[in-house]
Amino acid sequence: MSEQDFSALSTTKSIQLSHGGGGQEMNKLIKGLFFKAFDNAILRSEEDAAVLTLEGKTAFTTDSFTVSPLFFAGGNIGKLAIAGTVNDLAMMGAQPQYLSCSVIIEEGFEIGKLKTIVDSMANELSISGAKIVCGDTKVVPKGCADGIFINTTGVGKIIQSGISVRNLADGDAIIVSRDVGRHGAAILMAREGLTLESELISDCNTLWPAVEALIAAGLDIHAMRDATRGGLSAVLNEWAQASDVGINLVEDDVPVSEEVRGLCELYGFEPFDLANEGTFIIALPQAQAQKALEVLEAFAACENAAVIGSVNNDHAGRVILTSGWGSRRYLDLPQGELLPRIC
Amino acid sequence: MSEQDFSALSTTKSIQLSHGGGGQEMNKLIKGLFFKAFDNAILRSEEDAAVLTLEGKTAFTTDSFTVSPLFFAGGNIGKLAIAGTVNDLAMMGAQPQYLSCSVIIEEGFEIGKLKTIVDSMANELSISGAKIVCGDTKVVPKGCADGIFINTTGVGKIIQSGISVRNLADGDAIIVSRDVGRHGAAILMAREGLTLESELISDCNTLWPAVEALIAAGLDIHAMRDATRGGLSAVLNEWAQASDVGINLVEDDVPVSEEVRGLCELYGFEPFDLANEGTFIIALPQAQAQKALEVLEAFAACENAAVIGSVNNDHAGRVILTSGWGSRRYLDLPQGELLPRIC
Repeated sequence: MSEQDFSALSTTKSIQLSHGGGGQEMNKLIKGLFFKAFDNAILRSEEDAAVLTLEGKTAFTTDSFTVSPLFFAGGNIGKLAIAGTVNDLAMMGAQPQYLSCSVIIEEGFEIGKLKTIVDSMANELSISGAKIVCGDTKVVPKGCADGIFINTTGVGKIIQSGISVRNLADGDAIIVSRDVGRHGAAILMAREGLTLESELISDCNTLWPAVEALIAAGLDIHAMRDATRGGLSAVLNEWAQASDVGINLVEDDVPVSEEVRGLCELYGFEPFDLANEGTFIIALPQAQAQKALEVLEAFAACENAAVIGSVNNDHAGRVILTSGWGSRRYLDLPQGELLPRIC
Repeated sequence: MSEQDFSALSTTKSIQLSHGGGGQEMNKLIKGLFFKAFDNAILRSEEDAAVLTLEGKTAFTTDSFTVSPLFFAGGNIGKLAIAGTVNDLAMMGAQPQYLSCSVIIEEGFEIGKLKTIVDSMANELSISGAKIVCGDTKVVPKGCADGIFINTTGVGKIIQSGISVRNLADGDAIIVSRDVGRHGAAILMAREGLTLESELISDCNTLWPAVEALIAAGLDIHAMRDATRGGLSAVLNEWAQASDVGINLVEDDVPVSEEVRGLCELYGFEPFDLANEGTFIIALPQAQAQKALEVLEAFAACENAAVIGSVNNDHAGRVILTSGWGSRRYLDLPQGELLPRIC
């Protein structure tokens, strides 16, 4: 498809039902926009399925993104859709290799916005080197979706095996890669139309380069997970239950920015419950914690990495939070609505 | 999670935003409904990504399903979401192995309907033996989606290589596995509230058993594709262009049921443009056509399989339709809205 053909597409300005009908208009949209941004040999083959050559253990993960609003401080649904799935692969010690991309678009959606989103996806892919090799486009009538939903599903080669929610052990240190709650707070801010004097932007980010460096450093990572929906609280509770261990969390050691803390006080949220999209938690033997922090600190997004707790054999299945005043309480899995549609 | 816990879930009767929030309610929905229906060891591991052991060439494909209405004669969105992705793998000569399942549910959606859909998915999976090994659940506020959207993405081991849109050759026969246009017609009927005296049901069906038999018979399949959106017209036009050949289609040889023909006359559709969800087209050397028909006829859904055309070197890139009166015209890629949301 020539440049000229895509110009013709652009002049229609908004997505029509025919763009999802399987005919000429859909062909133009797919070739003029998606194929151009994500170009690679496998995608270009246009078969019913991409043909991949995979070896050894492969990680496989899926996520549908329905974030509202679509654009927020620090990213948009496109950046999020790539970072989110790439991060799920990275958290299994897998190098992100191939992604599928499936979009559901509401009739009337601006083609200019779609192009911005697709360009963000292409840009974010370049950080991990993963490629989009197959896709699907559906258009639904006005009022049947909210702008655009994106599903990305990914596969990656597992480079370090044995990383698992079930592998936490007595004596492990718990590390967080940066200050928590930024993504949830940025979405809340965008939704409420708040503007702060200070800059609060989402942590939305591809974590593979930092994970790759941790693996290359030869660390014995027991568990690793990005703290998305349900935040830090959800990850630690899942770990405590899956590994049947207790986790002690020291409140004052968890990095939280002033902006996030302020918003939480205003809205009655816990920073530990807020979603992140570029923040991960690591469990590894205490003796390796310092080395892990040194590796992380080389990455701009991980400057505030910190040891925030430890694993023990008391209170198996529970997370104990020690406050700044020394009081102790259970930190539970978040309950209720929290902040819907943060990813 | 115990039976009792799921009963507690069922009594809430409809999906709430909290079912997608990453907290306790979501955990209950996922474990009480999805894990129970799709149960297998990989899914149960609950890691950020499923760990698969894949060998050799692997096919990888994605589809988001937005069909409206969700229930239609011959199936529902759940059956469709499994058959659709499994069929895309089968069309590449790949044995369907692992699927991801990602759902976007509208707040207020009936849990009873969700259970029916999930049960249909589990049932359809049993036909090919593919397993759902990872998933994602999102809930959006009322009015932000239309009931439920399902994405399935699949991987499968390629058993017969070389099947490709680019491999059609002069002298190939074109075979269709059954009568065309049923799915599009069934959706149209459901949407318009039509009831016919005769039974018109969708062809929605898992094609892997028939494809497996064709491969086992040692046939030299050049190209194979299920005729979904855009119908037979879209497949043949894509093939003619990708392989740079001409395709002759004999109108009277294409099986079309009386019911589909009647609906097409009523609404001004072409049966060749209507979607199918369990009907596929094969190109293979003329000398093997009879053997292929014999293999197909052993399957109830392929009883009406027929040779419908042939491949030549004239009119490269175009499809020529010869009518019952002997007149000839180009059969073009469908254009315009057709029937939106048929899959």
